[in-house]
Amino acid sequence: MELTEDQLIEAIRKVLSGEFPGVQVGIGDDAAVVGSGTGSMVLSTDMLIEGVHFERSSISARDLGAKSIVVNVSDIAAMAASPRYAMVSLGIPVDVDAAWVMELFGGMRAACDEYALALVGGDTNRADAVVIAVAVVGEVGSGHAVSRSGARPGDIVVVTGSLGAAAGGFLLSRIHPSKLPQALAEPWGRELLDAQARPVARVGEGQTLAQAGATAMMDLSDGLAKDLSRLCSASGVGARVDLPRVPVAEALRLAAGFLEVDPAELALTGGEDYELLATIDLTNLARARGDLRERFGVTLSDVGVIIDEGLVAVDAEGRQSPLEPTGWDHFATA
Amino acid sequence: MELTEDQLIEAIRKVLSGEFPGVQVGIGDDAAVVGSGTGSMVLSTDMLIEGVHFERSSISARDLGAKSIVVNVSDIAAMAASPRYAMVSLGIPVDVDAAWVMELFGGMRAACDEYALALVGGDTNRADAVVIAVAVVGEVGSGHAVSRSGARPGDIVVVTGSLGAAAGGFLLSRIHPSKLPQALAEPWGRELLDAQARPVARVGEGQTLAQAGATAMMDLSDGLAKDLSRLCSASGVGARVDLPRVPVAEALRLAAGFLEVDPAELALTGGEDYELLATIDLTNLARARGDLRERFGVTLSDVGVIIDEGLVAVDAEGRQSPLEPTGWDHFATA
Repeated sequence: MELTEDQLIEAIRKVLSGEFPGVQVGIGDDAAVVGSGTGSMVLSTDMLIEGVHFERSSISARDLGAKSIVVNVSDIAAMAASPRYAMVSLGIPVDVDAAWVMELFGGMRAACDEYALALVGGDTNRADAVVIAVAVVGEVGSGHAVSRSGARPGDIVVVTGSLGAAAGGFLLSRIHPSKLPQALAEPWGRELLDAQARPVARVGEGQTLAQAGATAMMDLSDGLAKDLSRLCSASGVGARVDLPRVPVAEALRLAAGFLEVDPAELALTGGEDYELLATIDLTNLARARGDLRERFGVTLSDVGVIIDEGLVAVDAEGRQSPLEPTGWDHFATA
Repeated sequence: MELTEDQLIEAIRKVLSGEFPGVQVGIGDDAAVVGSGTGSMVLSTDMLIEGVHFERSSISARDLGAKSIVVNVSDIAAMAASPRYAMVSLGIPVDVDAAWVMELFGGMRAACDEYALALVGGDTNRADAVVIAVAVVGEVGSGHAVSRSGARPGDIVVVTGSLGAAAGGFLLSRIHPSKLPQALAEPWGRELLDAQARPVARVGEGQTLAQAGATAMMDLSDGLAKDLSRLCSASGVGARVDLPRVPVAEALRLAAGFLEVDPAELALTGGEDYELLATIDLTNLARARGDLRERFGVTLSDVGVIIDEGLVAVDAEGRQSPLEPTGWDHFATA
């Protein structure tokens, strides 16, 4: 790519142009200046690295750009907050052309538009691999943020939607190219790949769960088993999970034979679902479930209960075993 | 390094522990929750990449951590704002040990303490090279941010402190190891290396310049020639620079023979000074200069004037030539 930093910033500015409420100084200055809300600010950051989180050959620049925004919006959603502003720091290798970078920002812009946040600033750098670091600022009414640490023994453990489709999509993207057409001929093939490449953040759902009385909440980025262990650790409690109640994505069930995986196992340990994991008092469960179904058409599954300590899995026959906090580790040497 | 992501986050949390005003939910949750101020929010992000911005062999982990914070604080300072919160996204190669990462965060923590901001969140990832992306949120009274775009013809162009020491330090760090002891035997040797490894952000100075009536302001990260061209471009004006008035760092003058460089040229084009470049009406210059000297012991040099268009350099004999916007390009293929 033969653009200078200034030329690239100018091109990016065009992709991102427009007026956004609250933005006083946008892209191109030392820093962005935005209006501050009346409640609390919520701050989140996530990094996507080529070769670790994605391969350029298996995701389009547009999907990658959108995903880099959505995974951060998901963190904001998990606090029951609303995303407002995003900043992007980018590392770009020499062999990436300007069109790819513009597509990347096009995807970011589309995701920002969809979730009503403004991309207000960034930093571009030469690098050996594509690196995308996004930081998002959100807003939540004072005292209304839902952290990971409020779960109490007796609370019901709930998850939105269904699990494992993104992990299925990841596996599908890694199979031999000669086998891929067979999978893509089936509706579940496209659905699994989409789940991994085009995740959805549950912003409205997070706020609805908070209003319904969620005591703790987080987004599922590293798999239910691992993320639930984190929520329990933050809250100083344990949990018992009823394995048959874990909602397995239908597309994953249909793909299980083709992928030669146990769909229930993958739903428990697969990463990147970006569904919400929450805890809630039993008396509030019906209301939460009804509100989510009515407002968003999203199911809420109760998959277990918070206990004093320990992580326990119970299978269909009522047999108990330790719930191993295995799953996606973005830090593991893969 | 044999730590898992969760173990690393726990270790980092210990380095960063403490109570910070305004922080309601800190490190370890999906996102940080902080109080929002009464003015405007200022948002900045910067990425440091191993092999592009630094080599692990030539800067300590502690200095690198501090620098990653300071370069962002400098962007906030250049808006006349106060830094409040920082977030860090990190990529860490396999060959980096945990002690190095702890030193890195120790340096970040020390810089955050020095500039009174709280490190509230982050994200750690496996990577092929060390990548540090920092985002900082600052605060400024409504309408008091100073952008790059307010310079008007007739305004005086001013810079804080002196220029070129960091570029001299960069050159010094690249000379043959056998020559280094000779340079380090001189006070200027250590001073130049320090300027590059331990930059200082001009937070109070930025606010003082704003109070004194600065019409436009930015920090000097890529060299006076290049950054002034950016300020002029943002303001839709030109500038004439009196070359003899550009304040060359004394240590660089002393090192010029050893480094075989033209110190005036390096002061004009060298990056990473993190001094402030501003424009101000002539009637406000004396007050700005007096306030900076009195409050911070910092000199303010008037180096030129804003004109309608074009970038012109005037030498000691009064000869004019085009001021080429050459300098440090973080995006250049180095």
